[in-house]
Amino acid sequence: MRWWGWGDPSQPPALPAHALAFLADTVVLSARPRAPVALGEVRLAPVGLSRELLAQLRAIVGARNVRDGHRERVLHAGGKGYPDLVRLRAGEPEGAPDAVVYPAAHEHLRALLELCARCSLAVVPFGGGTSVVGGVAPLRGAHRGVIALDTSAMAGVLELDERSATVTVQAGIRAPALERVLGARGLTLGHFPQSFQYVSLGGCAATRSAGQASSGYGAIERMVLGLRMAAPTGDIELAALPASAAGPGLRQTLIGSEGAFGVISELALRVRPAPRERIYEGVFFEDFGAGAAALRMLAREHALPDVARVSDEQETRVSLALAGVGGVKGRAGRAYLALRGYSRGCLGILGFEGGAREVHDRRRRALALVSGCGGLAVGRSPGQAWLHGRFAAPYLRDELLTHGVMVETLETAAQWSKLLALHSSVTRAIAGALEACGTPGIVMCHISHVYESGASLYFTLIAGQREGDEIGQWRAVKRAAGEAILAGGGTITHHHAVGRDHLPWLARELSEGGLAALAALKAELDPAGIMNPGKLLALSW
Amino acid sequence: MRWWGWGDPSQPPALPAHALAFLADTVVLSARPRAPVALGEVRLAPVGLSRELLAQLRAIVGARNVRDGHRERVLHAGGKGYPDLVRLRAGEPEGAPDAVVYPAAHEHLRALLELCARCSLAVVPFGGGTSVVGGVAPLRGAHRGVIALDTSAMAGVLELDERSATVTVQAGIRAPALERVLGARGLTLGHFPQSFQYVSLGGCAATRSAGQASSGYGAIERMVLGLRMAAPTGDIELAALPASAAGPGLRQTLIGSEGAFGVISELALRVRPAPRERIYEGVFFEDFGAGAAALRMLAREHALPDVARVSDEQETRVSLALAGVGGVKGRAGRAYLALRGYSRGCLGILGFEGGAREVHDRRRRALALVSGCGGLAVGRSPGQAWLHGRFAAPYLRDELLTHGVMVETLETAAQWSKLLALHSSVTRAIAGALEACGTPGIVMCHISHVYESGASLYFTLIAGQREGDEIGQWRAVKRAAGEAILAGGGTITHHHAVGRDHLPWLARELSEGGLAALAALKAELDPAGIMNPGKLLALSW
Repeated sequence: MRWWGWGDPSQPPALPAHALAFLADTVVLSARPRAPVALGEVRLAPVGLSRELLAQLRAIVGARNVRDGHRERVLHAGGKGYPDLVRLRAGEPEGAPDAVVYPAAHEHLRALLELCARCSLAVVPFGGGTSVVGGVAPLRGAHRGVIALDTSAMAGVLELDERSATVTVQAGIRAPALERVLGARGLTLGHFPQSFQYVSLGGCAATRSAGQASSGYGAIERMVLGLRMAAPTGDIELAALPASAAGPGLRQTLIGSEGAFGVISELALRVRPAPRERIYEGVFFEDFGAGAAALRMLAREHALPDVARVSDEQETRVSLALAGVGGVKGRAGRAYLALRGYSRGCLGILGFEGGAREVHDRRRRALALVSGCGGLAVGRSPGQAWLHGRFAAPYLRDELLTHGVMVETLETAAQWSKLLALHSSVTRAIAGALEACGTPGIVMCHISHVYESGASLYFTLIAGQREGDEIGQWRAVKRAAGEAILAGGGTITHHHAVGRDHLPWLARELSEGGLAALAALKAELDPAGIMNPGKLLALSW
Repeated sequence: MRWWGWGDPSQPPALPAHALAFLADTVVLSARPRAPVALGEVRLAPVGLSRELLAQLRAIVGARNVRDGHRERVLHAGGKGYPDLVRLRAGEPEGAPDAVVYPAAHEHLRALLELCARCSLAVVPFGGGTSVVGGVAPLRGAHRGVIALDTSAMAGVLELDERSATVTVQAGIRAPALERVLGARGLTLGHFPQSFQYVSLGGCAATRSAGQASSGYGAIERMVLGLRMAAPTGDIELAALPASAAGPGLRQTLIGSEGAFGVISELALRVRPAPRERIYEGVFFEDFGAGAAALRMLAREHALPDVARVSDEQETRVSLALAGVGGVKGRAGRAYLALRGYSRGCLGILGFEGGAREVHDRRRRALALVSGCGGLAVGRSPGQAWLHGRFAAPYLRDELLTHGVMVETLETAAQWSKLLALHSSVTRAIAGALEACGTPGIVMCHISHVYESGASLYFTLIAGQREGDEIGQWRAVKRAAGEAILAGGGTITHHHAVGRDHLPWLARELSEGGLAALAALKAELDPAGIMNPGKLLALSW
């Protein structure tokens, strides 16, 4: 993973000339490329741990598994949110862990957490490190130091119970590695967030992650059947069960705990037969409202595809222009859409996965329903293009940053009755905040997670950076969006989690009583407050 | 509701002569009918509340809504579990609430809980009063007195959001009343536990109830989108949302809290279009293993009907003999089954609900899959018979009690890989315990809630009562079953909840750390420990 951005360092740039030209027409590009500083120029405070403490950590996990070198600390200095990248590229992260520790087993976690609680060391659980909400910021709170607890050495598959369609894993396993193991047995987990190539399953569970195919496979909270957590005061072990009424839903209480209660060490996950057939195709709608109505109808009729997305007018226009996503960028395609009256329409992607016959039947039924809602099927090319580029956006963001362009995403979910008004009010709030910053930009949105009672809204904003005050600009946008989301009846986050960035809205969403309940849980499991300070349950904006 | 048993007092006896004859062949019937005592003979301790305290309660909810008459107290002296009925019929309940209080609004709850915390009054939230696990036992713990907080006056429909397919109700509303309101708008909740005719939705949510059509509609925890709870220290309010990643799944933490944290006052519930078509039909399998395998296949292929059940050999035999359930009790039907080699087989019921075309398609696909697993479709008559009798079993239990017959049910769920062994070991454990009591009996079982990773097992046992030691006999059976369930990897309860009866196994199921987490939540929300003492979080066997 690049220390200053996303993904594989060998990945070539992906922003074609026509896309750059489109952007130059739309937002202000920086006059000169703004490349990241060299790794050596990243400024970090000296390691704050005593030799004795480092020796104690090494005694637990082995000498090679406690690392405090410059590169290692920079790689754990933050997640992959916009402010993280702005700071890292400038060589000015807010902080870095004093050391990065790699436990290999649950017993290591127990010993580490006991040591850290005793010695007042903050612990930041670090899976794939892909948080976009400050979830892995190396904050020490009032503690003497802070370590990143990197779970990448806890990556084993412990049991594959094919009869129960359940796999038990160490929580540090990466999603692609797990899919490889499962694929060899004709199975899949079906969890494909945009960060798929790097996420750990423990991180997904800790943040209530939702994959791009959540309409079919469900979000991670539907996949976790059992789990094991090491908290400073002890372990919680919940065996894999299909369902239970043995008191409150404790599994769901730990899913979404964001490292603030303890470290998830093992997960039992529901798996499914790998799809033998995959059909992804494009549908055009006259406008966003028509697209949303079609998705609502599909959910109501239990005819949802596995992937169900609709972009709004702006996102449809920009995607077609930027990257050719949509596959109808050619002259002929556009002429066809114009002829049918969809020239300013909205692109939807419907993806069906499963057995050949089943996919065929579900596709036919869904397309009939969508067509009844005014949708125009435009064939597989847009679906294939979307599938091909589904994990590419973070790479694009890095390139845009080099051109002085701010790219940020934020998301919510709400009941259908509130969704279109929420779409408008959040769009206006973001656009207004950008204008107030003197950097008018593009605000676009799509629905990508669909439920019977409502759906998600995923906003992307693109604007010229306010040079020298990038973080202030970002904060203004984030604040405006968050206020509009809460005012409009949305959740502050559908699948990005709370982390640090959504703290200001949590009490309003969960009510003071709800927040007090979570605080009581934390106090029980982590009385010294060493677990991921400043996230989930502490205001730090 | 009958004070000494189940349901509508005008319901005629339902046990035909042939059924009684079958039972007399199988278990020992009491020589003389054992009718319940007269209501006036039920022995209760005098009301333990001072006139002043009663006046304070009346000041909150109005004079008519605080009742301490004999009949009222008897009606709230327990739930509808086997030991409850044994004690009540004998006129010897363990206790009764000092008063029954009927709040009408959330504000009443706030004032009541504050008063009760201040004056050391235990509060037993009482919805439909149908708990079969001691969940509404009027235990006072160390408090000065105990009130039943009956929610039946909190029964309003607050909002019906048809676009979002969401209804918001006061939590005391009964399931049939809600279905009537929804039905008038072409909607349904789809929650049909055996106790349907009496349950409150708040009680369902507090106990993680699952309806008979849970394979299609999901259990209650899938229906609750938002809720409001009044706890002694304050309110928790969680708005209706289709999904959220804003921290731990707090909704799921309150679902299943069994009145031990607070009183659920409002619920936002997902609703669905009422089915336009309903097809319920019977399928025979060679044995229970074949039936379970067929259900597993249906789940795996996403072809589950809305109702999916398979009885084991014993239950099939007994149901056919006892009540004609199955609809193939006639000579011709039996001859047909014998001819096809299913004379000792297992009966399954598959129920499909929805739009006519959709039901037709789903049914065809499911029957093809089931047939591939060796299932033999035997037409709609068994399905119709099951539908007709689906809420009748509790009436039957009352009649059997009169004949000196113990009838108890208990349930679990487990992964598919453990299910058949668990079925055997629990059956053996119950049968062994009955034999050890000198009352050998019938133990039978069905699967009725099906998941991709596993299923429920629902056991019914019938045996002659050990006169004079009915509770000891019951306890021996319950203990043996619980131990076998935990040893076999099952949950101590799939949908009956913990209440009082499952307390001995909770720590093993949730681990000590999990139990400590729940205890911390309770301490935060109910520091005086007034909420439903002796249930969920206190050992009292």
